[in-house]
Amino acid sequence: MGKLEDAASALRKGGFIVVYDGDAREGEADLMFHPLFSAPEKIERLRKEAGGLICLAIGAEGAKKLGFPFFTEIMRRAGLESISCRKTAYGDEPAFALPVNSKMVYTGITDNDRALTIREMEKTILLGGAKNEFEKNFYSPGHVFVLVGRGIENRKGHTELGLELAKKSGLSEAIVMCEMLGSGKALAKKDAMEYAEKNGFPFIEGRDIYG
Amino acid sequence: MGKLEDAASALRKGGFIVVYDGDAREGEADLMFHPLFSAPEKIERLRKEAGGLICLAIGAEGAKKLGFPFFTEIMRRAGLESISCRKTAYGDEPAFALPVNSKMVYTGITDNDRALTIREMEKTILLGGAKNEFEKNFYSPGHVFVLVGRGIENRKGHTELGLELAKKSGLSEAIVMCEMLGSGKALAKKDAMEYAEKNGFPFIEGRDIYG
Repeated sequence: MGKLEDAASALRKGGFIVVYDGDAREGEADLMFHPLFSAPEKIERLRKEAGGLICLAIGAEGAKKLGFPFFTEIMRRAGLESISCRKTAYGDEPAFALPVNSKMVYTGITDNDRALTIREMEKTILLGGAKNEFEKNFYSPGHVFVLVGRGIENRKGHTELGLELAKKSGLSEAIVMCEMLGSGKALAKKDAMEYAEKNGFPFIEGRDIYG
Repeated sequence: MGKLEDAASALRKGGFIVVYDGDAREGEADLMFHPLFSAPEKIERLRKEAGGLICLAIGAEGAKKLGFPFFTEIMRRAGLESISCRKTAYGDEPAFALPVNSKMVYTGITDNDRALTIREMEKTILLGGAKNEFEKNFYSPGHVFVLVGRGIENRKGHTELGLELAKKSGLSEAIVMCEMLGSGKALAKKDAMEYAEKNGFPFIEGRDIYG
């Protein structure tokens, strides 16, 4: 339980955590923080120190309230099922839903803009976000990639791992995450552990969360 | 004509160029190269030295052959028009079409995977890409954001500027691009110019291209 508590405590304080899924899945570490503490400096760290896509994961319940379908469902509805991803190489359906921007942004891609979009999304979810509220304040396509969790019982990706940690920490079911990349490949597990230690961020593995 | 020729020549040699749209539009510089020369080292530079979204822009003709609708069109077809972006803060409709991965990738986000997806897309376009070819070899949602140009007469975004340069250089109508970010905001024009000079990359502005 020590690792779980450390990670939950870091999230509650607005800190970063490093979450590694497992050798048998993506074999990838993601740098995460809770969107309640979204700030431009944090987005800057994600893009400079992690390097992947900056995503906001939300729970299935929150997504339903906001009227958020999976991207694959949108493709089906739009008659594009033939190129829609059924299964990734690591075995799961993708967690992607919609890429969004707050209507208050300018280009949407800067640290300031992405931090703002994430903060506004968190506010909307926290307030029990209704579909019309979401439609009034956001648009798609944008620059923050919203992922929707399928529940840790059903899928054990970074999306579900991060959301489970957010729930366990007593915060809203949402998490900001970004893949940690090395040269060419995903950052090696030992390098991700070293990075976490050097920065004082908790390092936690999938099995510590669901196991 | 000197600036145009320098940029075209750099693209033909597989080099980078820096393209600034204009003070009256996004006021943003993008780092670009031609997808024929896609390689993991280049993707790594984009994410480390530019920091925005790594996108592949293709021409309207190529997009039509591949069966590529705009993202806003997909939203409309899927009954999500109410959150679909009509106009960005800088006045244009977004150029986003679909986010794709080659079916050969593992996670899709690593430098190796993104370079592979881009290389395969370029190959498909170069060979006159048909829709069934595209559907056989790629899936969506993926990690390379495909943008579609509306032609330089109709829109003067980085998408159209980059594609115009690719055409003028005699290469296929496609370009890889990534927004250059500074702390919090878009990288200032003078910093983008300094970066270009330090690295020996041509710096070119929108008005040099369409003006």
